Amino acid sequence: MRLYSYFRSSASFRVRIALNLKGLPVDYQPIHLVRHGGEQHSPDFLATNPDGLVPVLVDDSNDPAVLLTQSLAIVEYLDETVPEPPLLPRDPVERARVRALALAIACEIHPLNNLRVLRYLVRVLEVGDEAKNTWYRHWVESGLGAFEKQLAASPMTGRFCHGDAPTLADLTLVPQIFNGLRFDCDYSRIPTVMRVFDACMELDAFKRAVPDRQPDAE
Amino acid sequence: MRLYSYFRSSASFRVRIALNLKGLPVDYQPIHLVRHGGEQHSPDFLATNPDGLVPVLVDDSNDPAVLLTQSLAIVEYLDETVPEPPLLPRDPVERARVRALALAIACEIHPLNNLRVLRYLVRVLEVGDEAKNTWYRHWVESGLGAFEKQLAASPMTGRFCHGDAPTLADLTLVPQIFNGLRFDCDYSRIPTVMRVFDACMELDAFKRAVPDRQPDAE
Repeated sequence: MRLYSYFRSSASFRVRIALNLKGLPVDYQPIHLVRHGGEQHSPDFLATNPDGLVPVLVDDSNDPAVLLTQSLAIVEYLDETVPEPPLLPRDPVERARVRALALAIACEIHPLNNLRVLRYLVRVLEVGDEAKNTWYRHWVESGLGAFEKQLAASPMTGRFCHGDAPTLADLTLVPQIFNGLRFDCDYSRIPTVMRVFDACMELDAFKRAVPDRQPDAE
Repeated sequence: MRLYSYFRSSASFRVRIALNLKGLPVDYQPIHLVRHGGEQHSPDFLATNPDGLVPVLVDDSNDPAVLLTQSLAIVEYLDETVPEPPLLPRDPVERARVRALALAIACEIHPLNNLRVLRYLVRVLEVGDEAKNTWYRHWVESGLGAFEKQLAASPMTGRFCHGDAPTLADLTLVPQIFNGLRFDCDYSRIPTVMRVFDACMELDAFKRAVPDRQPDAE
């Protein structure tokens, strides 16, 4: 398999964790989102993914090779084609809970804080640095505050977001925590979230996926 | 089943289409996102969903009753518990494509344009009306432009986003098109998308789900 990734991209980070949990080695293809005006906008990469987004996973064990986009869709594909260890529970109610937790980050927090949105704020709306950082922290802190309530209120929360094994929810949560640290987000009011984060970070699959340990890390 | 919904909410609209396609009647509970300072912030509703977001689906055919959040997780739950007609293909590669199309809207376009984000732009960043509308159209038009390329390039695109029956991708696309119409988005450069949209709107399940036909429509 071939993974087009940027070391700092949270969405790429999710897929890296999933690949590690499944024990799948990949050929890592760095796409630098800043250098050269953003390599994701290069004609070569756009021919691969017209969205101009990372991650992209190419599964060449499939015949013909299949090109996959959107991190959560990639993780579901990996879970369907390489079932062990499972990244989603079997019961539909539990699956819905895990997916909802993942989407609470992937749809409510992360899209507001990615590079192209922050750039629009600065370049088009001429928002200053402090207001940009406040925007960033607002969505992370309010979003993770709601996430904390969901974890704290449910008997299904265990050592991880759902039970005692890592799932799609955890591999979406951990990159968001990392990302927020770069903007000094306040995590003092989300103890359950941080307990789960710490449990994840004891696992080798999460440790090896962090930005600093990627081939393109700066 | 009980659906907490706001007539104009795109995420609620997705679930309404799915329920109609599955032939599932619901008890419709309107949550007005504007009136009374936003009914989603009321203590009653927050006790139901600490996220303070619609839609919420309560499935009381399950024992105990289950409360579901996040529209795409709700639709996957409905598809797993009421398999016919399927809203996702069976093949993992095709499922990944349908999910990626849905997420290209649910993660890349919609989160930037919902009510609370537009409010933050106006109230906190003091962005004027014209700049706010330009922001809105920027994400819709660039996002749907990438979506158009994906549809136009793939032999898997049929009468609908994927093949000749509606899927999760179509029920995510249609509300986004409706939403963009309110902001005069330019749809002249996305002919494949609009052809699929028109095909969807011939179906009763989509027609009955539109904002104007909900009990809380204004």
